[in-house]
Amino acid sequence: MRSINDNNESIFCGNELAATLIDMVRKKAPSQIFLLTDQHTKEFCLEAVEPHLGSWNYHLLCIAPGEESKTIKQSEILWAELSRLNADRNSLVINLGGGVVTDLGGFIAATYQRGISFINIPTTLLGMVDASIGGKCGVDLGVLKNQVGVITSAFATIVYPPFIKTLPKRELISGWMEMIKHGFITSKEYLDATLLFETNDLSKIESLIWTSIVIKNNIVQNDQTELGRRKTLNFGHTLGHAIESYGLQKKGQNWIKHGEAIAIGMGLACYLSHKIYAFPEEVFNDYLSKVKKLVAFPNFTENDIAQIIDYLKYDKKNSHGGVNFVLLKDIGQEVLDVTVKNDFIYEAFGAIGQSKQ
Amino acid sequence: MRSINDNNESIFCGNELAATLIDMVRKKAPSQIFLLTDQHTKEFCLEAVEPHLGSWNYHLLCIAPGEESKTIKQSEILWAELSRLNADRNSLVINLGGGVVTDLGGFIAATYQRGISFINIPTTLLGMVDASIGGKCGVDLGVLKNQVGVITSAFATIVYPPFIKTLPKRELISGWMEMIKHGFITSKEYLDATLLFETNDLSKIESLIWTSIVIKNNIVQNDQTELGRRKTLNFGHTLGHAIESYGLQKKGQNWIKHGEAIAIGMGLACYLSHKIYAFPEEVFNDYLSKVKKLVAFPNFTENDIAQIIDYLKYDKKNSHGGVNFVLLKDIGQEVLDVTVKNDFIYEAFGAIGQSKQ
Repeated sequence: MRSINDNNESIFCGNELAATLIDMVRKKAPSQIFLLTDQHTKEFCLEAVEPHLGSWNYHLLCIAPGEESKTIKQSEILWAELSRLNADRNSLVINLGGGVVTDLGGFIAATYQRGISFINIPTTLLGMVDASIGGKCGVDLGVLKNQVGVITSAFATIVYPPFIKTLPKRELISGWMEMIKHGFITSKEYLDATLLFETNDLSKIESLIWTSIVIKNNIVQNDQTELGRRKTLNFGHTLGHAIESYGLQKKGQNWIKHGEAIAIGMGLACYLSHKIYAFPEEVFNDYLSKVKKLVAFPNFTENDIAQIIDYLKYDKKNSHGGVNFVLLKDIGQEVLDVTVKNDFIYEAFGAIGQSKQ
Repeated sequence: MRSINDNNESIFCGNELAATLIDMVRKKAPSQIFLLTDQHTKEFCLEAVEPHLGSWNYHLLCIAPGEESKTIKQSEILWAELSRLNADRNSLVINLGGGVVTDLGGFIAATYQRGISFINIPTTLLGMVDASIGGKCGVDLGVLKNQVGVITSAFATIVYPPFIKTLPKRELISGWMEMIKHGFITSKEYLDATLLFETNDLSKIESLIWTSIVIKNNIVQNDQTELGRRKTLNFGHTLGHAIESYGLQKKGQNWIKHGEAIAIGMGLACYLSHKIYAFPEEVFNDYLSKVKKLVAFPNFTENDIAQIIDYLKYDKKNSHGGVNFVLLKDIGQEVLDVTVKNDFIYEAFGAIGQSKQ
């Protein structure tokens, strides 16, 4: 297993899931184990984990799959369940699932009796390269994503790339977009590698996953509470999240998926970067032509765009009433806290729509 | 103002409430201020604070007084209210009230958008010497007190002793018991001083309050997450909390108050310390005779005691199924993680009942 061992958290990546998990659980020596998963993950991934917990006192907690479970209500059910089963401060929560499970499970663990330990075992590509790395966890408040949560550290995060073989393509793309983002904000070499979308060669993917983990972990370790560099990770996400929220609320579940919204958000951010900071046009064009082979961009009307702009005001990265964008002067050269005129946003939507495919 | 300035938190104590508050708010330069209080505190204490916030964009949030407000449901209402009012990460919450307000307000601030800053202005003696110092915050889950919460740091805690003039005596005793506890766990001199119960001389009280703040802050700074010495602060609280929970659930609101339960819990812990670790009998007797002048001990039946013992299993300091007591070999000499036989607990209830008044 490749591994990073920081002060508070260990991150592993490789094929030895069982041995690593057993090792970490032994190290923690918990009074009880609570394995949190969802019905979907249970079917595909539980057998890789559950048989190895036999010698501990453990309980399975299973939630419905999907964002609908990332609520305060679901948290309350889980806190009550932990209480009922006499979970104490030496109990351990193991989160086996995608971002919903690790976000929710991390939050309930971090707040149960003011904090118990948890291990993340992400089962989606998005979870592996993004959601489970960096300690952000939390739940949604109505339509506001991750509005309630904390930043904390998992006791361990164990990334087992073979799980991605169980994923549908649309789900895979969500994770892949974050890897592309890691390229945009650090190096042309990694950006080019991720833009090849070689989704079938597992050993190549594993190496790319590891690079993404290292990139994200380096950034968050140096800026736990998002006062500076961590904001870079928001590249493409300001408009991406607004598009996603708008889609979910006004257009229904299937209009756009997270990864697609981020793909479009990064296209827009590239254009704005080009417009305002002379980000290289050829990188913008190359990105668009490649990403459009994978992701269908919806047609945005003037009215769609106006409403998406309105959603920007809910972005958690805002401050003092302004919307803060992360833009790039070049690959790996970020400009933080940029205010962008609405005219430019309309123009950017035009530019990503018209570009050659 | 006396003050402590640690890395993450400043604590002030003295008469210059307004000037200190204005100073700290200026330092924070918030986008908006949310002043959280309860209906009771609003009546007595708001006028000392509100007029000084006039130059900032601020909102008043007011909850019903009492433990009934320390819930997830109330938290959800407040998170939604912050969202509705466009609170962002540079917003500031000011908690003006007793332990319920600072525990709840600290929790919602620490979890809103994964954490915004807050200032505590405790208005009860218990809040001044205990609840608002050390970063513990959270809410109850049904009958389980503080079952959900986090440990975090207030941006500032401003202790203004004149507020205690507004308190009823039973409320004052709650705080005083914590000051006595600080004596038990650190020095005979401070224990003797607090056992005089000189509740009318404000300048003397202010000096005692400050000593308690310093004691508590020293302990928690060296052990934020309660792995070691912080457990000392639990002296008298293991049985105290069980008595309080039992009373609230089975005997009604007025059978016993927090401070009274802790007074009895400390008596029991003294007896157990004497029984198991030869803690000086004269200190036990001196404590009982003095505290009984202030606090009426209910008569505990065998059945009461059996049920109180049953409540011990919910104590957050338990681990691996055992109940962990903090006992003392002598004043200031703690023994942590002691397991106590039930027989001894029955005997201790007998001993505190029979002692001379």
